[in-house]
Order: sequence, then structure tokens, then C-alpha cells
Amino acid sequence: MSGPLEGIVVLDLTRVLAGPFCAMMLADMGAEIVKVERPGAGDDSRAFGPFVNGESAYFMSINRGKKSVTLDLKKPRGKELLVELAKKADVLVENFKPGVMKKLGLSYEQLREHNPRLIYAASTGFGQTGPYSARPAYDLVIQGMGGMMSITGPNAQTPTKVGSSIADIFAGVFTTIGILAALNHRHRTGQGQMVDVAMLDCMVAILENAVARFVASGKSPTPIGNRHPSIAPFSTVTTADGMISIACGNDELWKRFCKLAGLELAEDPRFATNPERVAHWAELEPLINEAMKKQPSAFWLETLQAAGVPCGPINDIEAVLSDPHVLARQMLVEVVHPVAGAMKVPGVPTKFSESPAEVRGPAPTLGQHNFEVFGKWLGLGEAQVRRLVEEKVL
Amino acid sequence: MSGPLEGIVVLDLTRVLAGPFCAMMLADMGAEIVKVERPGAGDDSRAFGPFVNGESAYFMSINRGKKSVTLDLKKPRGKELLVELAKKADVLVENFKPGVMKKLGLSYEQLREHNPRLIYAASTGFGQTGPYSARPAYDLVIQGMGGMMSITGPNAQTPTKVGSSIADIFAGVFTTIGILAALNHRHRTGQGQMVDVAMLDCMVAILENAVARFVASGKSPTPIGNRHPSIAPFSTVTTADGMISIACGNDELWKRFCKLAGLELAEDPRFATNPERVAHWAELEPLINEAMKKQPSAFWLETLQAAGVPCGPINDIEAVLSDPHVLARQMLVEVVHPVAGAMKVPGVPTKFSESPAEVRGPAPTLGQHNFEVFGKWLGLGEAQVRRLVEEKVL
Repeated sequence: MSGPLEGIVVLDLTRVLAGPFCAMMLADMGAEIVKVERPGAGDDSRAFGPFVNGESAYFMSINRGKKSVTLDLKKPRGKELLVELAKKADVLVENFKPGVMKKLGLSYEQLREHNPRLIYAASTGFGQTGPYSARPAYDLVIQGMGGMMSITGPNAQTPTKVGSSIADIFAGVFTTIGILAALNHRHRTGQGQMVDVAMLDCMVAILENAVARFVASGKSPTPIGNRHPSIAPFSTVTTADGMISIACGNDELWKRFCKLAGLELAEDPRFATNPERVAHWAELEPLINEAMKKQPSAFWLETLQAAGVPCGPINDIEAVLSDPHVLARQMLVEVVHPVAGAMKVPGVPTKFSESPAEVRGPAPTLGQHNFEVFGKWLGLGEAQVRRLVEEKVL
Repeated sequence: MSGPLEGIVVLDLTRVLAGPFCAMMLADMGAEIVKVERPGAGDDSRAFGPFVNGESAYFMSINRGKKSVTLDLKKPRGKELLVELAKKADVLVENFKPGVMKKLGLSYEQLREHNPRLIYAASTGFGQTGPYSARPAYDLVIQGMGGMMSITGPNAQTPTKVGSSIADIFAGVFTTIGILAALNHRHRTGQGQMVDVAMLDCMVAILENAVARFVASGKSPTPIGNRHPSIAPFSTVTTADGMISIACGNDELWKRFCKLAGLELAEDPRFATNPERVAHWAELEPLINEAMKKQPSAFWLETLQAAGVPCGPINDIEAVLSDPHVLARQMLVEVVHPVAGAMKVPGVPTKFSESPAEVRGPAPTLGQHNFEVFGKWLGLGEAQVRRLVEEKVL
């Protein structure tokens, strides 16, 4: 079925993660994505392991549903062809370092002369402006600079990186928001524009209550493990065979939990109210863990859930991807890749009632759509495309 | 200046974090947001500390630039007024548990009878469908169930929650994407629709290479601290006075790093190539830390950056919010609240060249815009609004 972005045409010059993740979301929502790759090697992430039949599982997962053409942007003819493609596109998205596109003669200012309706989105580590603009960025560096590591970890001495590359992913997601909002502006005014998204800005924007706490108190929060700063018990606890989360948001839930856990603490003045429980968490935590260790996780999850005490498993990736709810929500779907064969990829978290977003096909092989795109968009014949390939323009 | 969503009118029935974060992004981009709150108490997060002059810093930070009206949706007159407001709105966003709006007679199916162009977005823990749909959800529970904790932490035995409520925030962000894409669909077709976003789905969608690695190998990844699974050195290291990140993506950078760090390891066969360095990381890490401990972080950052070795500080929140680049990018901005006074809030990470997104004003006090909204939208006079307040409908 056609998605909410049906008819929108996107030139995707991005590599690795942030930009490709953005273009993937647009593809899932029904836009036509033409990924423009370097002849020969293509997107760097085609070389990232692990591989399935020689194809990168990583590349395939975040480039599903796109078309691939090759184009050498350093050759004059390559530049010309890119300009011709940009004339036909609604959106161009790139994640080169600032200045690279300008040097190629392909900056927003240059391209909008050819297509004033073009929405040009650039996703970078530090953005198009500011003192660090020219620096290279990696997710690790940005998570550290952006404060995310300073509030994540088992204790104050152990700042910890988030296991997923969320600095990249948030940049991709905010770039998508920028493109979609710019499309809305264009519907109203006919005007294209440039969207500039920096990974570091995105990290600052999602620090959440850490900023509010700092602004109100002047003190920087530190990592506090898995517990909540002002609710208890609201943490992970250790069972006979693992770990679960429990979330007692009020005194009533606490009393219910004590009864089920066999803890005679509900009347203990140290733990009678939430502020007392937070203040005495160092004493309370071992008592709870001692009780929880008497049964396995499955027992506690069933018992607590039946009584309405919010809780959940700490799933590993295998458990997540076989969870009946995750499967019912179509959050793991199969695509069949021409080389790698059938492969599972994450589904689409934004569900639409009338114009569904969905995984629309496998990732392309390098240059798979050269004939189709240069033919359909620019009217080049097969012989012309073959010659461009021989000349290493494509 | 007007933003890219100029002219879009949003009814915001959300509370706490995921939904309010979504509506905040829409407000920053220039949409008119009318936040509909319970008479008396309002959004639960108005009661969350820390407080500035009695106003919640947390509430103020994620509700800036919105208008507030009060409305008791359980009273027949309250329902009627909500329907009248929904007739005038482009978008309605809510984050009640599934079924609550239907019970109130205000589900999407019911509201679209009155406004077929309405985009109705629901942000929940588990979504409108699937076996866990009715369960309550908390960020902690979802981070555990969604696998994020299983790949975050200092070692395999210590699954760790991300310090920011990213399950909530990603749900807010993906809901924003759904609303904006649905607006695009409506521009083309005139048709509204329902957008359904679940926190758990969002967590699965952003597990990134953890899913690709599991799909390719059948093995669930575990937390590995701050290092990279397949590049070394690409990690945090300990200096004389703290910790920094370094990211040597190739052998050339490794050699340069060794020279600067005074390490005679570049020719050591255990560490000559990246695969060797990854394989011998347990031996290499203490050697690097020993060298790094000889100087403070500032020395190493300056030395390494001057030589082009990617690196960065591990900033606490105070350092982030006083960083010259963060300030140059306007990622910390001041709003003046009528009660709390001047207050800093995070800026907007999506930068537009022609229709800027920006923080458009302080958060509203409860019901601050009752006269304005019920007057302007529904034509109610001041006396009528006063009577509705007396009757506790507002």
C-alpha cells in the first residue's frame, strides 16, 4: 500500500548511519529513495561486518527499500548528472563534513539555483556553524561531549556509553523531522530550504530531566544505575536466575509488593513513604534483592503482573526479537535480498491507519538501479549508461 | 519568525513526557499547541520536582511555547467542548492508555465523524494492538523489555538503563514523524488518519547493529562498556584527572596516537593491525591508561586534537551547557516564565534556513489560555467561560 510520503522523491548521498537511518524512515513511509554511492566501493558500511553471503547485515538493515545508483561526484560529468538528478528531486540528504558539498560545487546555495523547491538536509557531527563545525565526529565522542555518558552508568564513577549509537540515530530522526516539516512549509509556500542537524545538538536536546535538575539546582547529575532519582522501589532487582525491573509508583503498590515478596517491611517506618524509601534505598535494596533471589524471574513477573505491580523482564536481543508482542506489532519483518537471501530486519514503529509505513524491500546492491534511474529520470539510454560506467563516472 | 508548521493547529491531550515532548517539537516549529489539562491539577508533571518558585522545572522545559486550557473530559459538557475544539484542529495528540479515549466517547473513530481531516496521534507504552496493549508502561520497564539495557553497561553482568528516558523520548519523536508524514498525506489527499506509536516498538527500531549482529550470528550481544566491538583503540581512557574518549579508526591514527602518548607499541606485533588490537584489548587497555594517567584531560585533548586524532571530553551537564559550541548553536536558550522568572531550557536541534524552529515562549500556567482559546476558537464570551469554570467543566 502507498505510504504517507507517496510521490516524494529523495536523493540520498549519505553514508554509514545517521543519514542512511533518516532515508530509511522516508523509504518505509513510501518515498522513492535514490541512494547515490561512490563507484567501486559504495557506502562505507557495505564493508562493515557481520556479513551474510558476503553482504553486510548492517548495511542491509538500514538501507532496505532504497534504490542505488553510482556516481563519481569528483568528475565533471558526475557533478552534472547530480545536478540533473537534483532538479527532479524533492529532497536531497547528505552527511558529509561541512564544506565538502560546497567544494564539489554542489552546496545548497548552488543546487537551489537549479531547483528552488529543493529541500536540502545535512546531518553532521557538529553542524554547519559554530567553532567545532569542521571536526570529525563519532557516536562515542558525541555521547561523551553531549553529557549522555555522564548520566548513564552503574555509579557516579562509571560514565557509560549507551549500547546503541543513539547520537547517530537521533541525528537521523531529527533530520527526518526537519525534512517533513520543510515539506509542510513547501506545500504552503512553494519554497524549499536547507535543514541543518548536528549530532551534538541532538544529544543536548534529549538530556531531559538532567537539564531541568541542573538548571534548578546548579548541580550536575551523575549516573545512578538503574534506579529512579525520586521514586523507590523503581529499579532493577536480582532474582534467582537473572534480573527484572519493578516500578512501585505509590505506597499502595509498595504494600502490595511487600506482601507478594514476603517482605515484612510495609509497616517499617524507614520505608513507609516514598521519600523514606528513597532516603533509605541503600538499606532497602539488599532486603528486596534477598527476597527476590528466592524465585526465578518468570515466577516474579507472573506474580507481580497478576497483582498489577508494574514490572518487566530485562530481555536480551534474542528474547526481544521472539517476544509475542513485538512480533504481533510487526517489529521484526523478513526481507529477501537478492544475494543474502531471506533476512530479518526491525519493523517500522510509526503505524498509520490509512497510508501504512512498512519495509518495502531489500537493500540494493551497488548501482543496481543505474539503468532504471538514469533512464527514467534523465532519459539516458542503456548504451549511454554503459559508457558512463566504462568511463567510471558511474 | 514563522516556523515550518505555521498555521497548523494541535490539540495536545498528553501528560508527563512522551506526548508533551512531541507537542513541544511541533510548538518549536511554529504550530499552535493548545494543551488540554485536567481542571485543578493539570498535567501530572506539574507536580514533579525540582521546582523554581513553586513551578516544576521539568514541566516548564518540555511544555514551553504551548497554550493551556482546562477541560474535564468526564463531564458531558467537557466532552462536547473537546469535540468542538477537535473540529477546528489539524492534529490531536494523546498518550492515554489504549481504550481511555474510546470510553470517553472521544476515540479517533468517533472524532473523525466530526472532522475527517483530523490527524489523531496516540503515543503509548505498548501500542493500540497486541497482547500487552493494556499494560501500563514506564521508561525503565520498556528499556528492559526492549533490549536497550542488555547492550548498555560496563560489562556483560551489568545491564544498565540509559540515564535519559529515551524510551519516552523516542516515542515522542516517532509520534512527531508520524504526524508530519500524515500532514503530507493530507496535503495530497485531504484525508486525515490515526497514528499509533508504542514505546516498545521504538526501542526495537533503534537497537541498530545489535539486531544485525544477532540476525547474522544467532548470538545476543552483551554490554561491553565504552569500547567499540570491532575497532581499537576506540573507547574511553583514564587520564590524570578524569576520562576522555579516543577514536583511532585506522592504523595511521594509531601510530600517531602512540607517538603522542609516548607509547612504544606501534611496532609491537600484538597491536600492529586493528584486528590484533581488538583481539588483545585486555592487554592494550592498561598500557594506554598508564600513559594517559601522566597528564590531565585538557592536555591530551589539546595534543590529540592538534594532531587530528579524534577525541573528546566526557562532559558533565554543567560542562555541556557552558560549552562554547553548544552555546553558539543556540542549544541553551532563556525563556521568561510569568511565575518562575528567567529560566534556561534546551534549544531546538533541527535548524531551518527559511522558516526557523525556535523556543517560542515559556510554558503556560494551568488554564492560562481558557479565555483566549474558548473565545477565539469557539466564540464563547468571558461570562460563559467564567460559568464553565464555576461548574468545574474548565
